Amino acid sequence: MRPTGGGPGDAPERTVVVVGGGLVGRVTAWRAAQEGLRVTLVEPDPVTGPAGARAASTVAAGMLTPATEAVFGEEPLMEFGVRSAGMYPGFVAELEAAGGIRVGYRTTGTLLVAFDRDDMAVLTDLHRLQERLGIATERLTSRECRRLEPVLAPSVRGGVLAPDDHSVDPRLLLRALAAAGGRAGVTETAGRAEEVTAPGPGGARLGVRLDDGRVLPAHQVVLAAGCWSDRVKVPEPVVPPLRPVKGQLLRARVPAGEPPLVGRTVRGLVRGFTTYLVPRADGEVVIGATQEELGYDTSLTAGGLWQVLRDARELVPGVTELEVTETCVGLRPGSPDNEPLLGPTRVPGLHLAAGHFRHGVLLTPATGEAMARALTTGALPEYARRFAADRVSGDAHTTTWE
Amino acid sequence: MRPTGGGPGDAPERTVVVVGGGLVGRVTAWRAAQEGLRVTLVEPDPVTGPAGARAASTVAAGMLTPATEAVFGEEPLMEFGVRSAGMYPGFVAELEAAGGIRVGYRTTGTLLVAFDRDDMAVLTDLHRLQERLGIATERLTSRECRRLEPVLAPSVRGGVLAPDDHSVDPRLLLRALAAAGGRAGVTETAGRAEEVTAPGPGGARLGVRLDDGRVLPAHQVVLAAGCWSDRVKVPEPVVPPLRPVKGQLLRARVPAGEPPLVGRTVRGLVRGFTTYLVPRADGEVVIGATQEELGYDTSLTAGGLWQVLRDARELVPGVTELEVTETCVGLRPGSPDNEPLLGPTRVPGLHLAAGHFRHGVLLTPATGEAMARALTTGALPEYARRFAADRVSGDAHTTTWE
Repeated sequence: MRPTGGGPGDAPERTVVVVGGGLVGRVTAWRAAQEGLRVTLVEPDPVTGPAGARAASTVAAGMLTPATEAVFGEEPLMEFGVRSAGMYPGFVAELEAAGGIRVGYRTTGTLLVAFDRDDMAVLTDLHRLQERLGIATERLTSRECRRLEPVLAPSVRGGVLAPDDHSVDPRLLLRALAAAGGRAGVTETAGRAEEVTAPGPGGARLGVRLDDGRVLPAHQVVLAAGCWSDRVKVPEPVVPPLRPVKGQLLRARVPAGEPPLVGRTVRGLVRGFTTYLVPRADGEVVIGATQEELGYDTSLTAGGLWQVLRDARELVPGVTELEVTETCVGLRPGSPDNEPLLGPTRVPGLHLAAGHFRHGVLLTPATGEAMARALTTGALPEYARRFAADRVSGDAHTTTWE
Repeated sequence: MRPTGGGPGDAPERTVVVVGGGLVGRVTAWRAAQEGLRVTLVEPDPVTGPAGARAASTVAAGMLTPATEAVFGEEPLMEFGVRSAGMYPGFVAELEAAGGIRVGYRTTGTLLVAFDRDDMAVLTDLHRLQERLGIATERLTSRECRRLEPVLAPSVRGGVLAPDDHSVDPRLLLRALAAAGGRAGVTETAGRAEEVTAPGPGGARLGVRLDDGRVLPAHQVVLAAGCWSDRVKVPEPVVPPLRPVKGQLLRARVPAGEPPLVGRTVRGLVRGFTTYLVPRADGEVVIGATQEELGYDTSLTAGGLWQVLRDARELVPGVTELEVTETCVGLRPGSPDNEPLLGPTRVPGLHLAAGHFRHGVLLTPATGEAMARALTTGALPEYARRFAADRVSGDAHTTTWE
């Protein structure tokens, strides 16, 4: 599967087409271009366009929080997240220099708090897991939590401070990756990919057919279209069903001239629901989010808004004073095991970079590195092999490929 | 004060300038034009433009509910409301014929329900008031309420059915009034009025000066700019301070193909808060609203959205399934005594039609009739005299007129 030069048909050697202009597609394109590959990125929507449900990257809050996202049974994913979080400082420095755009990377840590007794029990278990995994976090009393974030409700039971769980602005990250990619030689094509065409006996070659009929020949193809990846027709069933997991959230801000509501990312467990407030330097706060399994439905619902406001308000009553500047609906791409699908498939030259679920922003640097390795050597680096795309079959999903 | 022909300066006789293109301004302009007056309406925003906080008419839900709005101590206002509600069928028929636009008038009545014991006590008192005033309403048990509207929460304690409290779509009403006005000869001028100039010894005449410097000479002027009326400079302090009362609400709809959520307007008292759901024929439901005294602030706040959703959800849990299509913020124009300000002021030729607070849509037909009478005879009809503009002085407010 290693590209050995002399691509099929008239595709120039070392030519890569990346399908999808979200964070995963763009970091892959940028890193591949830096490796000397000739990269074309296919994406229908402009990177500076409005947030749309099609692009989870423009909706995401941008938490880089492997410690406070830790889940029993997902240790390998958390390790991958910790690796990627550790790459962030260097990644941001390189990207901001390469793209000329600052990405709103804030290294102020995350405070995770619990609302009721049951939430506190979950948080205590989580802290034990963090300790076992060697992640630096600190248990705090209710009083200590409120000393850090005075706007927290007095009823907050206690918390865990994760000093290394930071945040970034995914919209700025997306623009910076587009700019850096362009400077590194990535060519962008506005269009929607409909099919990956396979090399075959009848003279067919690997390539990507767009909805306007154009075919982009390629040495290698990366499908990185989030939960839409399985809507692109491929020669064999190599893409498992990627289920969209709907998230509703809102963006709000303090009135002009007032200090920020919170100084760091505040996450909460509120009667079993997870909630978060992610502050930006300009006074904006991202408040979210629902997790709903409703297919490709992207409607903003009264119930979704209500849930987000209810839980955020329980933790931080002052949320009610914020001006709502935007409501957002996004679709997270969930794979069958909720872990990413990276690297080569059994169709020669066809790679996946999808299924990042709730972790796309966090995993952006590591995904870029792993995918560049796969595209240049034919294999994922050791640390990413668990997430190899060919671990799951797309067979179950063939009926929807028409 | 009666117009006797021979207007001041070169203003054509019987020329009227109406400042403000909301429902009150437009119904006044239409009715005045029907009386043979030469009417110019000054309004900066197009009638088909987006809902804006400047125009309460485009935000209002459109309840025509004098019975369920009845308040102790406001009987005269309620009587005015009942009169206007009674005019609606004929008004709508005439307007739809004249304007060629249907206005979404729904004669399905209103169900007012109570959530807890205290709310039920308030509702019981209200029903007694309605009975004393001779308004036809009917007490219902919780079960009877849910028979009428099966989506009501089982916890609803009981209610009152007001079979004559109807609704209209204010946005359609606004368009119909603009069309009917145009056909009746109303001239529209896009612009913002800055000053009413007075007739005076130096040759000055009554007129309206716009922000672009144009002056529209007039025989009579009607200030009908809602809570902005007191921002127009006038020769003497005849406009009392009109305080904006902020309302936040949302528009939502059932998923395509599903039956309407409610069959009639449902109003509720929920732990002392008032809430309503006003259905439209196309499946839209208007859900509101906050009442906030925050000056001219028109920000959509997290707390406002939350309150509206919280109370509506208590009454109708199925609200959570609705798709939110629009969030709105409007400013109701509140006079010092919360009653309208109609007709002549002590500046000869200058009339007010403002201060309709929560009742602008309901009072539109009666206001049109009363203002046309004032403009043609110099005096309000008997039934509207209580609301005479000259009952309150604007003296207290002169310092803001610069």
